[in-house]
Amino acid sequence: MSKTKVSIKDIAQKAGVSTALVSYVLNGKEKESRVGQEIAIKIKQIAAELHYQPSHLAKSLRSGKTHTIGLIIADISNPFFANIARVVEDEAKRNGYTVIIGSSDENADKSRDLINVLINRQIDGFIIVSSENSEQQIHDLKDKNIPFVLLDRYFPEIPTDFVSTDHYKASYDAGTHLVKNGYKRVGMIAYDSHLFHMQERIRGYQDSLRDNKVDFQETWLKKVKINNIENGVKAAIDEMLASTQPVDAVLFATYSLAVSGLKHITKLSLKVPEDLAIVSFGQAEVFELYYCPITYLKQPIVLLGQTAVELLVKKLTNNLNEPAQILMKAELIVRASSKTKYSLST
Amino acid sequence: MSKTKVSIKDIAQKAGVSTALVSYVLNGKEKESRVGQEIAIKIKQIAAELHYQPSHLAKSLRSGKTHTIGLIIADISNPFFANIARVVEDEAKRNGYTVIIGSSDENADKSRDLINVLINRQIDGFIIVSSENSEQQIHDLKDKNIPFVLLDRYFPEIPTDFVSTDHYKASYDAGTHLVKNGYKRVGMIAYDSHLFHMQERIRGYQDSLRDNKVDFQETWLKKVKINNIENGVKAAIDEMLASTQPVDAVLFATYSLAVSGLKHITKLSLKVPEDLAIVSFGQAEVFELYYCPITYLKQPIVLLGQTAVELLVKKLTNNLNEPAQILMKAELIVRASSKTKYSLST
Repeated sequence: MSKTKVSIKDIAQKAGVSTALVSYVLNGKEKESRVGQEIAIKIKQIAAELHYQPSHLAKSLRSGKTHTIGLIIADISNPFFANIARVVEDEAKRNGYTVIIGSSDENADKSRDLINVLINRQIDGFIIVSSENSEQQIHDLKDKNIPFVLLDRYFPEIPTDFVSTDHYKASYDAGTHLVKNGYKRVGMIAYDSHLFHMQERIRGYQDSLRDNKVDFQETWLKKVKINNIENGVKAAIDEMLASTQPVDAVLFATYSLAVSGLKHITKLSLKVPEDLAIVSFGQAEVFELYYCPITYLKQPIVLLGQTAVELLVKKLTNNLNEPAQILMKAELIVRASSKTKYSLST
Repeated sequence: MSKTKVSIKDIAQKAGVSTALVSYVLNGKEKESRVGQEIAIKIKQIAAELHYQPSHLAKSLRSGKTHTIGLIIADISNPFFANIARVVEDEAKRNGYTVIIGSSDENADKSRDLINVLINRQIDGFIIVSSENSEQQIHDLKDKNIPFVLLDRYFPEIPTDFVSTDHYKASYDAGTHLVKNGYKRVGMIAYDSHLFHMQERIRGYQDSLRDNKVDFQETWLKKVKINNIENGVKAAIDEMLASTQPVDAVLFATYSLAVSGLKHITKLSLKVPEDLAIVSFGQAEVFELYYCPITYLKQPIVLLGQTAVELLVKKLTNNLNEPAQILMKAELIVRASSKTKYSLST
């Protein structure tokens, strides 16, 4: 690319004028510098013919702003993140920003690489869905005074601006809903992860059982490794059903876990909710089109994405005067998969 | 960001050495320039303490390469593109490249903006899923000698390197499969789009009917606007069923069309495949978990993504000696939704 790059000098030569004159015109300063209209038009035409691209770096050094946001998501193939990325883009565009996306694949090294690649490309700031063990990256961004907002996940021990679902409350609501609907042996399948949002989902589930006087059993809580979802979920369900106190309901901590779970449940010919009630985090077409529509925790994707952009834009324009730590409510959408137990025929 | 940016000068001052010396060390040239090991370590330590980031531009001007690929996808919220992006990233990483993603939301203006933003950020080349009416952008990239590979969609009238599904063949296979299985009034719901891949899907469907001696009816082919999928699909299905020759099978040209279609079919309490057989482009969890598993055209996502990266890397390293225009086969995965009509009880 660099060898074909057209410079101001090339344009100046072709137009037979000074580089300073070209620079004035291409930076929209022809009026201040009293350049004739005719020569200004000629310069612009030549620039267009030569496919001149103003150097991004030079432009951003002048204004200090590039109007570009870096969005780091945890996994682009997860519909939750893909959909939130779409919202972030739409909202950024409304605010005059372009979004460049990197996906860390839940890998801290890759996340660090992406953040560095984007810093070197002069973005104005970041919106980040953090991956596990990436705390140091957040500290580094703070040390370097690079504006950022964390999205959906945050580190409670690091003071940052963030916007997130209230994961604890969502999980607590789901657990309570199942117990109130007559399910007394409620299990949960979560990820084996140190990430705070996952810990909060687990804590909410456990507290909901305790507060509703259900005697939580260790065998009801299964933690699956994120790189072994399919087999992990299979084993988890098999074990939960084979225990001395087999579960009659399962709360899936993520959409991916639920999809793997539904596949296995279908294979086992278990009837939902008669044999096993289901609630899942996250919204997806599959929850609507399953023969027994699935109760789910609807995360506020649009509001999360819009608020993250809003906060970052405020930071970039020096209009965010105090720390913003925003928790949003997930809505429990009740469908047939968690129907009141007493209403079931079996 | 710019005000906190640490320069080589800052490091030189703190270390009490010349900027040239710092530059040598940070560019890994301490040996050639005979810098003492102690002072080299000191310079590196100070650079780390000050969080020095080498200027990307300077680095890339030296090597002419940034080892960064720009990936433009048509819609990040579409699982096909999100999954292919994941494959491109994995394969790029294996080749030592970082991927920066932009999503055009099927909008040519946005696509142009993204391409320009990424060009100004010194990427080495592009992988592009083109949006409608973006032909001029492809011409511009060619004129500027910017390396790129088109993915999944291409413009037959513009000679470019591309890797794509054979959309015509896939559609032809699906139509033939339905007719051979006893469905004689096969409809298709596609997008109202000039994009070649969509035209090819429609042509394949029409040719499959003609070659199998089915008298194609205009009312069987419906074109839905991409910004009105839900209502467009509803109306299309209603009209197809109400026509004097109502369809007994539908081929959906995309996953999104199929999902909207299945929602409406479920609402109408139509039985699949007894009342209506279904085949769809694209793979998705919902096709597996629907009460009647859906026959679909499995696009070679992994191979498409890997080959696109492979071609681009070859171009970037001057190892692609002839034009590469690769069509790949989609596999028809036959499930219950297109079962042989004679085997059905109704």
